[in-house]
Amino acid sequence: MIRALTVSIDAMGGDAGPGIVVSALLRALQRHTNVQFLLHGDEAQLNPLLAKHAKLKGRVSIKHASGRVAMEDKPSHVLRRGRDTSMWHAIECVKQGEADVAISAGNTGALMAVSMFGLGIVDGISRPAIATIWPTLKGQTVVLDVGANVMASDEQLVDFAVMGEAFAHVIFGLERPTVGILNVGAEEQKGNDAVKGAAQILRNSSLPMAFHGFVEGDDIAKGTVDVVVTDGFTGNIALKTAEGTARLIGAYLRQSLKRSLLSRLGAVVASGALRTLRRKLDPRANAGGIFLGLNGIVVKCHGGADAVSFASAMDMAIDMANSNINARITADRAALRAGASQAMQA
Amino acid sequence: MIRALTVSIDAMGGDAGPGIVVSALLRALQRHTNVQFLLHGDEAQLNPLLAKHAKLKGRVSIKHASGRVAMEDKPSHVLRRGRDTSMWHAIECVKQGEADVAISAGNTGALMAVSMFGLGIVDGISRPAIATIWPTLKGQTVVLDVGANVMASDEQLVDFAVMGEAFAHVIFGLERPTVGILNVGAEEQKGNDAVKGAAQILRNSSLPMAFHGFVEGDDIAKGTVDVVVTDGFTGNIALKTAEGTARLIGAYLRQSLKRSLLSRLGAVVASGALRTLRRKLDPRANAGGIFLGLNGIVVKCHGGADAVSFASAMDMAIDMANSNINARITADRAALRAGASQAMQA
Repeated sequence: MIRALTVSIDAMGGDAGPGIVVSALLRALQRHTNVQFLLHGDEAQLNPLLAKHAKLKGRVSIKHASGRVAMEDKPSHVLRRGRDTSMWHAIECVKQGEADVAISAGNTGALMAVSMFGLGIVDGISRPAIATIWPTLKGQTVVLDVGANVMASDEQLVDFAVMGEAFAHVIFGLERPTVGILNVGAEEQKGNDAVKGAAQILRNSSLPMAFHGFVEGDDIAKGTVDVVVTDGFTGNIALKTAEGTARLIGAYLRQSLKRSLLSRLGAVVASGALRTLRRKLDPRANAGGIFLGLNGIVVKCHGGADAVSFASAMDMAIDMANSNINARITADRAALRAGASQAMQA
Repeated sequence: MIRALTVSIDAMGGDAGPGIVVSALLRALQRHTNVQFLLHGDEAQLNPLLAKHAKLKGRVSIKHASGRVAMEDKPSHVLRRGRDTSMWHAIECVKQGEADVAISAGNTGALMAVSMFGLGIVDGISRPAIATIWPTLKGQTVVLDVGANVMASDEQLVDFAVMGEAFAHVIFGLERPTVGILNVGAEEQKGNDAVKGAAQILRNSSLPMAFHGFVEGDDIAKGTVDVVVTDGFTGNIALKTAEGTARLIGAYLRQSLKRSLLSRLGAVVASGALRTLRRKLDPRANAGGIFLGLNGIVVKCHGGADAVSFASAMDMAIDMANSNINARITADRAALRAGASQAMQA
């Protein structure tokens, strides 16, 4: 008998506790009728939460874990002492083949360390990366790495390009998504050695990829390309700068609309439109990040995720589990290497 | 006789041509009654523009320059062939002591190259940087480097910290502005070698500076510190990502407000408030960037600057010319070096 697709969930990971995970499950069950869920965490907390909802029965199982990873725990500490945590158990299930994908809203650094330790890295890739989906004028763009690595060589940026392209293929359904490398200018001679080297590799090889060249910071939100590649230092800072800018503009907007009676009135009349905008600006609306380059699918939800965003992380996880992303990554990476060595021999 | 403070202007630099420079002068003349202006550019274009405004007479002189630097010219080309351009002449006047400060809305890379060649670098500093002023929840923050250097060592980041602090002192009038280094986390062990090294130097020395430690991308717009220090690669990408985010949100807002009759009505009623917001979001409202670390003050206006932003760049230039910024930079840098060598001997 083939078992149903199974999602392994760290129920103790987020700031809000397991309550939002259960609310997210109620949404996900309706959308994905043929999926099973494993909840890892404290039985004493989880059992009563589940007992309230009869429709969860038969679709959701609890696997007790006595410990949990705290947001401030160092990854090295979790690797040494974290084997009884809900996060560790969630990854372990994927490793053992009991589940197809793991989700956690916990400590990002610890989740990456536990995932690398448990699952190992895909053939042909040197380091995993964290990808996120960025709203743009044209729709959505994948940006990676947003924080797994503080540095990246030219070859690692090529790894990220291959992984990001495969992810965009799965998530956006594009045959060959366009890929750009984030830089301080579009011209070939601009930038540091890593971005110039990576661009040269992608330009010269017989591409299994639609490589656009360099893009700049404002190209992310323009949606110039489907995938933006950068190192985890720059990517993390760009992401948080964008979040900070969105909050600043939200604050400006509230101030402006409160300034006079007339503007208050306008805000009341346009409140529906402003609510839509607020939802778009809210970083919690995003599903979070996905770890690419591991022998297994791991989705990282925002620590402050609510039920809506946790459920959309589950959607993404299920899409990924139904895909052959790692086969595409390995094949594309090998094709790029073969192209590069042919180019050297020529 | 002591000559009045003199501003040397590249009148041919921006996208909009010399017309906006003349409009900016009309604003600046009223605000700064004891300042003279030298306009560098094509006499045939500038003379008729000036002749229209009697009040410019006696305060503004034209210095003919036959050439101009194009936006796409490479800095190396301008250094070899650009001696007859309005940009070169504008810097040369500062070098010769005929003017106190230069302003251009032209090609940033060329302006930096010509400025470094003409003016040289301040004692104790290894590379100049471009600083910009960023709007925040608390007011304004200086961010540097936003594009002069694609890489920066730990010692160069310390240079930027010293220069940014001195700039914030002049512009914001704070005795000791707070300084943070941009990183992917606030904890000491986070980040690459350059930011960790720079933080250690600033932490360990007997500080002439209020060093806050690391800040993250969202701390810029929060206004957590008065000065945010980063390398030119990350700084340029953060700045353009913020500009792109602001434009995206502006587009979302317009879409939301057009969606229904009710929201259109609300937008009309609140139009004053929305206009204020649009002005705050408009990157042209910023004065542009300032080149720090040169033996002379050079202000870079946005290429797309209008008269309002060109005039506010002049305000900044005049504030800088009236300050002793380079003396403070040299003294602080020497004090930091002395502190570091004492710490090594101890």
